[in-house]
This record gives sequence, C-alpha cells and structure tokens, in this order.
Amino acid sequence: MQNRQILLKSRPVGIPQPEHFELKSASVPEPKDGEFLVENHVLSVDPAQRGYVNDENNYAPPVPIGAVMRAMAVGKVVASKCADVRVGEFLYGWFGWQDYCVGTRASILRRVDPAQAPLTTAAGVLGINGLTAYLALHDIGRPKAGETVLVTAAAGAVGSIVGQLARKAGARPIAVVGSDDKGRQCCDEYGYAGFINYRQPLEPALRTLCPKGVDVFFDNTGGEIADIVIRQMALFGRVIQCGTMSIASWVPPPTGPRNDREILTRRLRIEGFVIFDHLARYDETAAALATMLKDGSLRHAEDVRTDIAQAPQALVDVYSGRNNGKMVIRLRWAAVDDRWSQLQRA
Amino acid sequence: MQNRQILLKSRPVGIPQPEHFELKSASVPEPKDGEFLVENHVLSVDPAQRGYVNDENNYAPPVPIGAVMRAMAVGKVVASKCADVRVGEFLYGWFGWQDYCVGTRASILRRVDPAQAPLTTAAGVLGINGLTAYLALHDIGRPKAGETVLVTAAAGAVGSIVGQLARKAGARPIAVVGSDDKGRQCCDEYGYAGFINYRQPLEPALRTLCPKGVDVFFDNTGGEIADIVIRQMALFGRVIQCGTMSIASWVPPPTGPRNDREILTRRLRIEGFVIFDHLARYDETAAALATMLKDGSLRHAEDVRTDIAQAPQALVDVYSGRNNGKMVIRLRWAAVDDRWSQLQRA
Repeated sequence: MQNRQILLKSRPVGIPQPEHFELKSASVPEPKDGEFLVENHVLSVDPAQRGYVNDENNYAPPVPIGAVMRAMAVGKVVASKCADVRVGEFLYGWFGWQDYCVGTRASILRRVDPAQAPLTTAAGVLGINGLTAYLALHDIGRPKAGETVLVTAAAGAVGSIVGQLARKAGARPIAVVGSDDKGRQCCDEYGYAGFINYRQPLEPALRTLCPKGVDVFFDNTGGEIADIVIRQMALFGRVIQCGTMSIASWVPPPTGPRNDREILTRRLRIEGFVIFDHLARYDETAAALATMLKDGSLRHAEDVRTDIAQAPQALVDVYSGRNNGKMVIRLRWAAVDDRWSQLQRA
Repeated sequence: MQNRQILLKSRPVGIPQPEHFELKSASVPEPKDGEFLVENHVLSVDPAQRGYVNDENNYAPPVPIGAVMRAMAVGKVVASKCADVRVGEFLYGWFGWQDYCVGTRASILRRVDPAQAPLTTAAGVLGINGLTAYLALHDIGRPKAGETVLVTAAAGAVGSIVGQLARKAGARPIAVVGSDDKGRQCCDEYGYAGFINYRQPLEPALRTLCPKGVDVFFDNTGGEIADIVIRQMALFGRVIQCGTMSIASWVPPPTGPRNDREILTRRLRIEGFVIFDHLARYDETAAALATMLKDGSLRHAEDVRTDIAQAPQALVDVYSGRNNGKMVIRLRWAAVDDRWSQLQRA
C-alpha cells in the first residue's frame, strides 16, 4: 500500500504553479498513541492554499519545502490509537494532499456523518466554504430585508452559497463575476438578483444595479474591484474581508487608493473573517446548511476531479476562475456514497 | 448691535487658510415663528471644519462661498419664538462663527446646564470632543483590561480624553504625538502609559511600546502613521477611524499600501465614527463625563482665544498641532461663569 503525496518543491511568489509541486510516493505511516490513520476520500482545493505556501503575511506559518501540501480533506479512519476516534468514522480535517495521513485530535475540523449528505459536500458546502458563507454573512454582514448584498467571486464555492443565504434573509444579492456565463448561473441557480461582469466598467454597472449603494460587501477578491465598490457603499455599510484572490503578489506591497475617508464619511465597518476562528460552531452551522440541502432550498456545485496529480493544476484553475463550483479531488468512493447516488438518480 | 461673522471667501483645496475667510459685520437678525436668537459665547474650532469647506467626499454639503463658516458654538438664547426654547437658557448647536445666530430646533445639539460645568467645556470635553472619545472608544474600541490602546493626535481635544477613559477601563493607552513636550503632557496629565513622537521612526518605537501589538487603534489622523500601525495590530484588533487630519488633500485621491491582507489575516475590525449619528446619547454621555470632571478624575485642556477675527488662524494652528487642548474662541463672559472661576480659585 503506497501513500501518494503532493509535496511543495519550491516556494512560489504569488500564485503557486504546478512546477512548485511534485508527486512522490511514500509508505503508509503507522499511528502512535493518541494518533489515528485516515484514508483520504476527498481532497479540498482552496484559494487560501496560496497563503499556506507563500512566505507572506498570513495566519499560519508557511508549508516547509519538501513537506506534504497543507490541505483539508475528508477521510475515513482506518486505524486508531486515539481514544475518541473510531475506525470507520469519517472526518474532515487537516489531512493534506495525500492518500493517507496520520492525525491527532488537533487535526480534526469536524466529524462527518455520511448519512447527512454526500461525502464531497463535507469539503465544500458543509465544509469551510459553506461555513464561511453562513457565519461571515450573518456575523459581520447582518443583511436586513431589502438591503443590497454585493458578492465578489460570486459563482465560487463561498459566493454561490452567500447569494442564496442573502436571498433567504430577504436581501438583494448582486454577483460580481468574471464571465456572463457565470453571472447567468448566479441568477439562475444561486438566488442572485443581478450580476456584474468585472471585465466591463464596474462603476456605471454598480450605479445601475445598486442605485441605493451597497449595504453589505462580501469581498473574496480585494484589489481594484474593492476600491470601486468601497466608493459605492451605502452609509453604515458592512464589508466582509474574506479573501484577497485578485492580488497577484503581496511582495512588494501593492498600493491602492486610501480608504480612510470613505470609511469615516460612510461610517463603514470592515472586518476580516477567517473560518478557523469559529471551530466551535461548525457542527450547528453544518447541520443548518444540511437541512437546507435536504429540503432543496440550497444549491451547490462541485468541480470534481479524480487524479491526485492534478491537484496543483486544480488550484491554478481556481485562481483563474476556470472552476465550476467547489473544487475537490475525489480519490476513492465509499460504500456510503452509493446510497446518495441512488437517491440522486431517483 | 452688530453681528460679526466669519464668511467663507473662497474654496480651499486641502487645509483652509486665513485668506479663504473674511470678517464682515451684519445686522442682528430677528427670529421668526419657530426660531430663536442665540448670542454666541464660545465658538468651537474643530479639525472637521476642513471637511465643511472642502468640495470633497464628506458627510455634509460644503459651506457655500459667502456664507457664515459652519461651526458649533455655545450660546445664550436672547429671543425666542420657538415653543420649547426659553430666553436665558444656554444651547450647544450649529450657530456658526458669528456673534448672533437665528436657530431652529434642528440647530440644537444639546441643551447646556451652566451649573454642570464651566461654559467652555460644553464645546469641548462635554461637547463633540469628549462625546466622541467616550462613545467611539466604548462602542467600537471596547478596550479590555490589559489591552493596548494606541491613540493618534493623543494630546488633542479627543485624544486627551481617550487616554484617560482607556486607563479607567484598565487598558494601557499609548500616545502618538508630534513633540516630546506633548508626549510628556499625555503621560503626566492624560493617563497615557507611554508616548511615541511620530517624527522618530515609528515601527521600532511601536515594537518597543506595544510588544504584544495594538489591540485598539483610535485613529484621528490616518495616512502614513496608520499604515504602520495597521501592520502592528494584534489579532482581532479594533480600529476606530475617527479622523484623517494627516492627509493634506483628497484631490487627487492619495494612495497607500493596501490593507486588505492585514485586515484579513489579523481579523481586524475597522469602523468609521461620526459623532453626529449619536445625538440621542449626548445628554447621558455628557452627564457621565461631567461627573468625572466634578470628582477630579478627568482632566482637560482648553486653548482659549478671544478674538473672532483669529478663528481661521486658530483652525490652521489646530491642523499644525500648535494648540494645547481644545481650541475655542471665547466671545463673551456670562455671569454664570463667575461662580466657576471662584470655585477654581478656591
């Protein structure tokens, strides 16, 4: 039994490319006391991974050169010397881009009930993406009925959920996307009331679609789009700083127009959101989202690839918007999934 | 009886200078139904006045050319055709840089009890400056015991109060000032635990005085100082955007390093504060501050000038830091003040 692993080969500046990684095979490790061995089924591919490998200002130390690429994954416990982790259960945690991972309790983000929803959802709509959408929108954005909620990367794994949750709250979500196709998808499937293709002039489009200004700005991209949106915020608007995908590199520090005066005169509240601060609320939030999935009121899309060797390219694709929904690498198929595919066919 | 008035003569770009104003004399107007006539005793001089005359992004339309300079003032009602405004009472409101003003109920910010504290305090520590310090620090900053609170323009009318209130909350206030003299004043009189002269390299001074980072940044200046402080914030730090005094001009829009990534990774909350949003809480807040003045636990400084013709220069002095505490122009002396000066001499 071999353990295929994607290792970080060299440190990228800006967006990591396939040449910064290499695929190697190692032996499957043995868990020691307090540890367990997980067999990964679904690897997560996330924009935040760029931050894990860059030597920039981040919320965690960078992945060392030669180490397995840091990633979340959903896996099945196949051996355990950890008191409260049982063989056969499914976990969502820091298991890396590899087949097998030895973990400890600290590696676990959430225990996954495979009867709750298909396994891939645990890495996406019921994983950090859906949890981020739900908690950041409600904690920071607090959209009220009739308010306008503008979302960047709106067709993405987070944005597609934000639109639907904003609509459920009675607000008017507007999508910012990189293509008209994605914009139409946002309106047809994700509850958005309109979309702006950021390749067109943004300011007039904003004035047309958000005539009373933007009350809640759910920002996944930062940069020049955010510069323009900030200047179209309504009084007492809330800005959720959730990601900076549009900034190619933080070295040297990029500059932009100063926002001090906008923040003051518009009485804005800008707040950074990192989902890993909210671990204690994952289960209740995932349960709320799972209920919406079951009753059909929440849609989600997954871009499922199956070859571990393609993980680095999948990350590049996420950064260039060449994904359709949450990007995951599906390594193996669990018996429990058969029931879900039967349900979906029914 | 003449009404001396400071009129706006031409529209400044950046900080207004004396040549943008002129002193003229007009006749004293008569109040109509619903109006009252106030005789100004104390004129307020505030950094925010620059925003009132600039044609920039602001929270109120600019003062028209030829109009009386917009300003807050404390005055005595000398005639009234307004049902609930009595002759003889003192008001704090939008009465302009002039001797006499016809006002309506909408011009009143707060009714002043001259027995509560000396009249000048109504324009400063019990006026928007003290109210701003109290409400912005507690609403947005929410300093906890042991936290570090960094304050720019710390020796000013707002900053001098913030330091003392932060200290009362058990936090550790650090002053950012433009001279060592002001810094020593902050430490000796306003409760600050240390000071940084911003004319010295800021980053090493911050690392020394705020080794665990800045938890609350009460920012009255914006600009390059803020750029450096943002990068020294502690996780979950709060930034109160209360003023942008250090920015010489907003036309063309000045640029600076992008803060998106700092906001995200440090989970900052940045919020704009404008005191005029909180009118309903002025009385209770002023009463709380007046209690501290009476029991001697709150100090304040006033820079009192007496010539209305000097008002424009006084504003320039505020911008260049050549003031010592709250800048006011004292036009006349009320009988009620005699008691306070007797008390102070006692």
